[in-house]
Amino acid sequence: MNAMTNRKVSALAQEAGAQFVGDPEKAVAGAAPFESAGPEDITLAESPKYLKELDKTGAGAVIVPESFKDFEKYAGAERPCLLRAKNPRAVWARIMQVLYPTRHPTWGANDSMIHTGKNFRCGKDPNIGPYCVIGDDVTIGDRAVIYPLVSIGDGCVLGDDVVVYPNVTIGWGTRIGNRSVIHAGTVIGKDGFGFAPDGEKWEKIPQTGIVQIDDDVEIGALNTIDRATFGKTRIGSGVKTDNQVQIAHNVTVGENSLLVAKVGVAGSTRIGKNVIMAARSGASQHVVIGDGAVIGPTAGVAKDVPAGAVLSGAPAYDHRRWLRVQRIIPELPELKKKIDQLEKMLEKMSKKEL
Amino acid sequence: MNAMTNRKVSALAQEAGAQFVGDPEKAVAGAAPFESAGPEDITLAESPKYLKELDKTGAGAVIVPESFKDFEKYAGAERPCLLRAKNPRAVWARIMQVLYPTRHPTWGANDSMIHTGKNFRCGKDPNIGPYCVIGDDVTIGDRAVIYPLVSIGDGCVLGDDVVVYPNVTIGWGTRIGNRSVIHAGTVIGKDGFGFAPDGEKWEKIPQTGIVQIDDDVEIGALNTIDRATFGKTRIGSGVKTDNQVQIAHNVTVGENSLLVAKVGVAGSTRIGKNVIMAARSGASQHVVIGDGAVIGPTAGVAKDVPAGAVLSGAPAYDHRRWLRVQRIIPELPELKKKIDQLEKMLEKMSKKEL
Amino acid sequence: MNAMTNRKVSALAQEAGAQFVGDPEKAVAGAAPFESAGPEDITLAESPKYLKELDKTGAGAVIVPESFKDFEKYAGAERPCLLRAKNPRAVWARIMQVLYPTRHPTWGANDSMIHTGKNFRCGKDPNIGPYCVIGDDVTIGDRAVIYPLVSIGDGCVLGDDVVVYPNVTIGWGTRIGNRSVIHAGTVIGKDGFGFAPDGEKWEKIPQTGIVQIDDDVEIGALNTIDRATFGKTRIGSGVKTDNQVQIAHNVTVGENSLLVAKVGVAGSTRIGKNVIMAARSGASQHVVIGDGAVIGPTAGVAKDVPAGAVLSGAPAYDHRRWLRVQRIIPELPELKKKIDQLEKMLEKMSKKEL
Repeated sequence: MNAMTNRKVSALAQEAGAQFVGDPEKAVAGAAPFESAGPEDITLAESPKYLKELDKTGAGAVIVPESFKDFEKYAGAERPCLLRAKNPRAVWARIMQVLYPTRHPTWGANDSMIHTGKNFRCGKDPNIGPYCVIGDDVTIGDRAVIYPLVSIGDGCVLGDDVVVYPNVTIGWGTRIGNRSVIHAGTVIGKDGFGFAPDGEKWEKIPQTGIVQIDDDVEIGALNTIDRATFGKTRIGSGVKTDNQVQIAHNVTVGENSLLVAKVGVAGSTRIGKNVIMAARSGASQHVVIGDGAVIGPTAGVAKDVPAGAVLSGAPAYDHRRWLRVQRIIPELPELKKKIDQLEKMLEKMSKKEL
Repeated sequence: MNAMTNRKVSALAQEAGAQFVGDPEKAVAGAAPFESAGPEDITLAESPKYLKELDKTGAGAVIVPESFKDFEKYAGAERPCLLRAKNPRAVWARIMQVLYPTRHPTWGANDSMIHTGKNFRCGKDPNIGPYCVIGDDVTIGDRAVIYPLVSIGDGCVLGDDVVVYPNVTIGWGTRIGNRSVIHAGTVIGKDGFGFAPDGEKWEKIPQTGIVQIDDDVEIGALNTIDRATFGKTRIGSGVKTDNQVQIAHNVTVGENSLLVAKVGVAGSTRIGKNVIMAARSGASQHVVIGDGAVIGPTAGVAKDVPAGAVLSGAPAYDHRRWLRVQRIIPELPELKKKIDQLEKMLEKMSKKEL
Repeated sequence: MNAMTNRKVSALAQEAGAQFVGDPEKAVAGAAPFESAGPEDITLAESPKYLKELDKTGAGAVIVPESFKDFEKYAGAERPCLLRAKNPRAVWARIMQVLYPTRHPTWGANDSMIHTGKNFRCGKDPNIGPYCVIGDDVTIGDRAVIYPLVSIGDGCVLGDDVVVYPNVTIGWGTRIGNRSVIHAGTVIGKDGFGFAPDGEKWEKIPQTGIVQIDDDVEIGALNTIDRATFGKTRIGSGVKTDNQVQIAHNVTVGENSLLVAKVGVAGSTRIGKNVIMAARSGASQHVVIGDGAVIGPTAGVAKDVPAGAVLSGAPAYDHRRWLRVQRIIPELPELKKKIDQLEKMLEKMSKKEL
């Protein structure tokens, strides 16, 4: 992807909330990693390693952390412009958003290539790809982008500036907030997995609830988010999920939580705000995970987690303890041998005593 | 989802196979959880906690277990109607099925919006959504519902009352029994993962078999069920799978087994009847899992499992032993310290002896 | 699937690179497993068990390993023809490829049922299924097969003889080499999962790179392969992935590596050539896995792996050590009891001494 146009670095700094030093007229055309950035690029130097090499970089502008002391020395035109911020990575993200705005194809909304049901309410500037199927009583907000081959069930309500990528299935009654993004192949609002054992067979428990996704959410590709048995499965605003995440019926995910690839969350579990569930981790049903908790990769949460806890392991427990345990586990054969030796020594000694 | 219409509780009880006590004319309009049920709702009280609060519920009718002794006392009109059954949850499921019958959009079968191959045989009351692609020599039973954007390969045979949700891919030769349901995005009948190493490279082993899914099966969203190398990958009648389940070539899943979210089953493994594989568990290839076995969450079955066994861990072993092991594992640092202390004590003592 | 036509076994042996003994005119119509092969079938006998039963087989021809000593005795017409090779399974695969060539439906490229953007360049003998959506500036090679319901983004380049199965989503700028196969429902070129924390919220880091898949790759169903932040996510030639594999942004997978079902690889990790990652295994971000390494089922690679290493466990370590550890773990309760007994004995002894 090429950046759209050249931008003055001093203006970018101001927009992104960073301090600026250097040539106020300096412009960049794009962003690049530290090692390969050229004079037309802005780059990011967070680590001490990169900060030491600031003079060697070919980059036209560099974002540095607040802790970088030599900031003022970079006023000269022979050196790169610097942008300094408390959170340099967030500044980097915001500047990249300006340099590389998301662009979507323009389909308009060609009635001959989409299928809409009764009572379709569509906002301003619709952009709906070919071969989309939209059910009855669907509402889609202004400037929403629906990529091709998407199925939207009856009674769904999608907000303004929503983006839905190809081959997504959205079941009846789903609500999606403003600016939320659903990546390709994801299935939202499928029946929750509810079956009652009846001797040999399983009786299906109808799933009467819906899925509600709030504002500014980004759902990864090939996620499954099931509808509630009653009420709502709820994804709070600002939540981001990676690919192949599974969220069962009646789960709540609090605001700004992050679910990394292949996470699975079982039914009725409540995940707090600003929680991070690392890749391949999971949580059992009816568990409460407190705000700000961090669940390590492959961990399995089997009981309630206090706010701010950092857990690893399956079943999961305190991460620092888990680290100590992991150092011991590969040494279990030696530990067992030592125990056997101690036992023999003791036996020998106790015989002597007799 | 709103229930379709009011129903007499006494009639619901009879249909669902439960004893009834209370006003025979009492009707309900829906079902709701115990805490929020109102006078127009039926609810379920399985736990002692809820049973103690029966008099406080606002519900119009309550399903209780056989063990509930005060059943007859609820004949009065001032109290909720009661339904009593050996398996209250199955009764609850059956009554919810009556109150909330599955409703599908009605597309008919508009030839201008679907693509069918040669020799398409379609039963009574077809209901095929827009932009479906159906291959040659396909047979679909009576009242089958094919949602939009489904691809069905050559020679497939789908039974009566089958439901296939959007964006499903069904490969050539697949057979699906009566009343079976395939949820969105699932891929059935893809080539099994068969490659022979030939020095550096991999030679593909053609997969010539099919997938057969029997009656009353429900396959979750984004499942993958691969075709056999020879013969069949077979999903027995009454099997229910959750989302993101992977079933490799030549696997057999016995009747009424339950595969919870993210389960993976490797090639040629045979799963018995009424087996439960909990979320995120898996089984190696060429393994036999006996009838009624239960595999715990995240467990990994690496060898044959006797009927009725309950296993946890990866590799999996007896669940009760696993529970004891899991209590010890986080204490390994203390255990190691104790061993070191014992060793030092012993050394000291043996030196004294000398 | 029925084989296309009868084939002379002697000719098949020559094509596949195997020694032949028996009736040079003998022909087979198909392939079958050892137990069920008939006189019209060729089969494979690799294990000593099957080799002992060679005289009992009903198969018309049998592929045997180089170690089989009685090869020459099978010249007589009353016995099956034999094919002998260093790598009998690869010969088996090559012969099955001849007997069961992949057949695809023929759609041609019906403009009224597909949607193509500007500047579409399509090679010889196009075969594009109904309801495909192809963006601007897309190039597709000779004899490529695009199944129905596929979405291909702007600027993609697909090579000759590529096969893309239904419901696949290919994002803008993706490059796919010659003869590569993408199975159903897979999502290629979705944005990498990049977000920068900014206090409470997450800022999206635009993903400007692409996915490049080289020649002779086979990608399983419901895979996710994310585009790079900068540069390329790269899948080397000859790589084969099973179903539900996740490959994050900026990952490199070396030539002829094998990723079995449900593998997850985190961002910027570099997987060497001829690596095998077994089912449900994973790798952390920024890890390097050396050529020829083997990662066991459910293992989690958390640091660099030397070439040729065989690892298991999460976090992963040497597989042989892991095997020894796994024998001890279920015995931890007994080990703990023994330690407690030793402690008591020691206490008793030290009291006596006093």
